[in-house]
Amino acid sequence: MDGRAEDLVARRRRLLGRGYQLLYDEPLELVRGDGVYLFDRDGRGYLDAYNNVPVVGHCQPDVVAAIQRQVATLNTNTRYLAEPILDYAERLLATHAAELDRVLFTCSGSEAVDLALRVARQATGATGVIVTTNAYHGVTMATAAISPSLGPGAPAGPGLRTVAAPAPLGDDDGTAFAGRVERAIEVLRDDGHELAAMVVDTALVSDGIVMEPASFLGPVVATIRAAGGLFVADEVQAGFGRSGTDLWAYARHGIVPDLVTLGKPMGNGMPIAALVARVELTDGFGDAVRYFNTCAGNSVSIAAAAAVLEMIERDRLLANATSMGDRVRAGLREIAAEHPELTRVRGAGLYVAADLCDPETGAVRGDLTKLVVERLRARGVLISAVGPQRETLKIRPPLPIAAGDVDHLLEQVAATMATLTG
Amino acid sequence: MDGRAEDLVARRRRLLGRGYQLLYDEPLELVRGDGVYLFDRDGRGYLDAYNNVPVVGHCQPDVVAAIQRQVATLNTNTRYLAEPILDYAERLLATHAAELDRVLFTCSGSEAVDLALRVARQATGATGVIVTTNAYHGVTMATAAISPSLGPGAPAGPGLRTVAAPAPLGDDDGTAFAGRVERAIEVLRDDGHELAAMVVDTALVSDGIVMEPASFLGPVVATIRAAGGLFVADEVQAGFGRSGTDLWAYARHGIVPDLVTLGKPMGNGMPIAALVARVELTDGFGDAVRYFNTCAGNSVSIAAAAAVLEMIERDRLLANATSMGDRVRAGLREIAAEHPELTRVRGAGLYVAADLCDPETGAVRGDLTKLVVERLRARGVLISAVGPQRETLKIRPPLPIAAGDVDHLLEQVAATMATLTG
Repeated sequence: MDGRAEDLVARRRRLLGRGYQLLYDEPLELVRGDGVYLFDRDGRGYLDAYNNVPVVGHCQPDVVAAIQRQVATLNTNTRYLAEPILDYAERLLATHAAELDRVLFTCSGSEAVDLALRVARQATGATGVIVTTNAYHGVTMATAAISPSLGPGAPAGPGLRTVAAPAPLGDDDGTAFAGRVERAIEVLRDDGHELAAMVVDTALVSDGIVMEPASFLGPVVATIRAAGGLFVADEVQAGFGRSGTDLWAYARHGIVPDLVTLGKPMGNGMPIAALVARVELTDGFGDAVRYFNTCAGNSVSIAAAAAVLEMIERDRLLANATSMGDRVRAGLREIAAEHPELTRVRGAGLYVAADLCDPETGAVRGDLTKLVVERLRARGVLISAVGPQRETLKIRPPLPIAAGDVDHLLEQVAATMATLTG
Repeated sequence: MDGRAEDLVARRRRLLGRGYQLLYDEPLELVRGDGVYLFDRDGRGYLDAYNNVPVVGHCQPDVVAAIQRQVATLNTNTRYLAEPILDYAERLLATHAAELDRVLFTCSGSEAVDLALRVARQATGATGVIVTTNAYHGVTMATAAISPSLGPGAPAGPGLRTVAAPAPLGDDDGTAFAGRVERAIEVLRDDGHELAAMVVDTALVSDGIVMEPASFLGPVVATIRAAGGLFVADEVQAGFGRSGTDLWAYARHGIVPDLVTLGKPMGNGMPIAALVARVELTDGFGDAVRYFNTCAGNSVSIAAAAAVLEMIERDRLLANATSMGDRVRAGLREIAAEHPELTRVRGAGLYVAADLCDPETGAVRGDLTKLVVERLRARGVLISAVGPQRETLKIRPPLPIAAGDVDHLLEQVAATMATLTG
C-alpha cells in the first residue's frame, strides 16, 4: 500500500470505524467507471469481473442520461400520481409469472426481504422460517437473523431452521433437498412454529453458487406449499438477467414463487429494490398496516430502473450473459485441465464459480482462492471469493462484457494459476 | 378527479396494490419541481409546504449538478477507497457533538433506526426498548415493531414499552416525562427485559410535533443512562437544519445522544441515510458481525449529500429556517386570533404545527384539519396532517422558502379558515 492508500485507510478507520471492510490486501482507490472497466487515480484500468450492481455496465450512457434528465426535472415520492412508476411496474411485472401481479418498492434488497418476511407472517399468521445453512439475505435485524453466513453476531430467532443447500454440481434433482426441508418443517412444528416462509437465494451464492441442476427448487416449493408456507425467491443476487436464460433465476427451475425480492442491479447503482407478489398477499398486508417507504420508488430511481430494463432488452443482454458465461466456463475448464487445483467450474449465465482445492485430497483450499483473487487484482482483473470456507471464485462481470474481455480474464486466470504452485 | 387521474389511480391499484396511498382527495399528478414549487401537467404551480425531503429545494441546481457529474463518472460501493465519502463523513461528524465520532451509512432512515437497534442490543446485551405512545420509526420489521402509530398491524415485541410524549405547549421541563420513562424501565425489568435503548424522534412528529420547551429531553437522557440504556435521537424527520437553531434538533435540548439516526433530507431525495455514534458502539458492533450495505454510501448518494450540507451552510439555511418559521408561526397566531378553531401554533424553525379544535369545548377536530389540508391543496398550497387524531396541521416547506412565499401560504391559510365555518 502506498502512502496515500495508507492515509485513506487510516481516515476510514477514524471516520467510518472498524466495521467497514475493503476488498483486496492492496485496496483500490477508484475514480472512474466505464462499461466493464474501473480506473484508479493513476489511470490504470481494471476489468471488473465482480460487481453485479452495474448490471448494464459502469456509467452506461442511456442510464446516466435518464438519471441526469430526471434529477433536473422532478424527484419525489409515491404519494403523488406519476406515469413513469406505473409504466415501469407494468413492464417489470410482465417479466414475471402471471400470478405475480403486484410490486412494492423499497430502497434496498434488505428492505425487500424484510418486507417479504412481514408479508409472509401477516398472510400465514405463522412465524417459522427456513433458509439454507450459509444463507445471506440482508442487514436489517429481521434479515440478518435469517442470514447464518453472518455468524453468531447476528442471532437467529427461535423460529428459524436451516437446511443444507444442494452440493455444487451434485446430482440432487431436488428430492433430497425437499426431504431436508420437510424435516425442518416438522422440527419447527415440534418447537411450536408453523411455517411462514422459506427464503432461498435463487443462485445460492453464499452457499457456494449452486445453480444446477436447474430443477432442484421444484420439489422444495411443493413441500413448502403443502405445509401452508410461502416460497420467497430472493433474486437480489441473481436477478435482472445474470443467469442468462431468463431475467429471473427462479424461472430456470420452472417454479412460480409466492414472493420475489429484487435489489442490487435494479437501478444499476441507484438505490432501488422491490417485492413482487400475488395481489392477495400485498393487499392483505396493505389492509393490515400502513407501509410508506419515503425514498422507495422515487422519480430518479424509477428512471434509472426503467433504463436498465430497457438496456437489458435492447442490447439482448440475456443472450450475451449466456454466451459469455459459457465462454468463461469453457475457458476455466481448459485451465482446470492444466491445473487440477481449479475444480468444479459452474454457474449459469454470468454467475460463474469455481473452487480451489488440494488435488490430492480434494479438500477445498480457501487460502488458494484468496491467492488467486489477490494476484488477479494485481494483474488488473477484479473478482472475489465466496462460499462457506471462501473456497469459491466469484465471477460476475456486468452483462455487456465482450468476448475480448472474457478472453483477457481467462488469460489472466491462466497466468495466475501458473504462478500458484510455483 | 378527472378521467386521467382516475385512470392513473386505477393503474396504481392494479400494479402497486391497495397499500399505496395518495395525498389529497384530489390526488396530484406532478411532473416538475423547482425550489419550493411543484408543478402538475397543466403547468399549475403548488407551493410545497409539506415535503421535508427536498430540504434545499426541489431540483436545487448545485445538488443536481453534483449528481449529474458523479453519475457520469463513477458510482460504486464502500469496499473501495474513495476520498469523497471520507470528506463528507468528516464534515458530517464535525456538525455533531465531539463524542459522536463515527458514521455508518445506510440506504434509508428505516435502515438507520434498524441498525441503531442492532447496535444498542449488541452493546448492552439487553432487549428492552422504550418509545413514545404514537411513535413512528420506520418500516422494517424491527422498526415497525417500535412504531405504535402504525397500529396493531405492526405487532410490537414483548420487550417494548411506550410512554406518553410531553403535551404540545405543555410546561413539563422533562421531569414528568422522565418519571414516565423511569416507570417504564421498572415495568420492563419486571417483565425480564433490561433496557437496551430509548428511541425518540427529536421533533416528536407523529406524537403531534412537540419541540418545546427545548430542554425536556435532558432528564430523560439521564434516566436512560442511569438504567444502562442508550439514548437514540431519531433525526430522520427533524435533522439537517429544519429546527432552525442547529442542524440537529437534539442540540436544542442540550443533550448528547449515544446514537443518532439520519435520513430523509440527507440527499435531498437521493436515498442515503446514516447512523452516527460513539466509536466503541460502532466498533463493538463491527467486531461482532459483518455489516455491508451494498448501495449505502454509494458515490452518487454521497455527492448529493455533500452538496446538501454545502448548500445549507453556504445559503445560511439555518437562519432562514428560524426567521421564516417564526414568520409562519406569527402569521398563524394572527389568523388564530380571528379564528379560534385554530390553536396551539407551535414548532421550531420550519417544523410548524397547529391544531384544529372546537372553540367551545377545546376538543381537537381532525375533520376540520382535513378540511383545511384539502382546501389548501385546492388553492395551490401543499401541507398535510399528523398527530394521534390527525388533528395537527403539518407545515414543513423546503428550507430556502422566501418571505413572499410564506406570506402567500399565510394568505391562503387565512382565506381557507374564513371558509371553514361558512
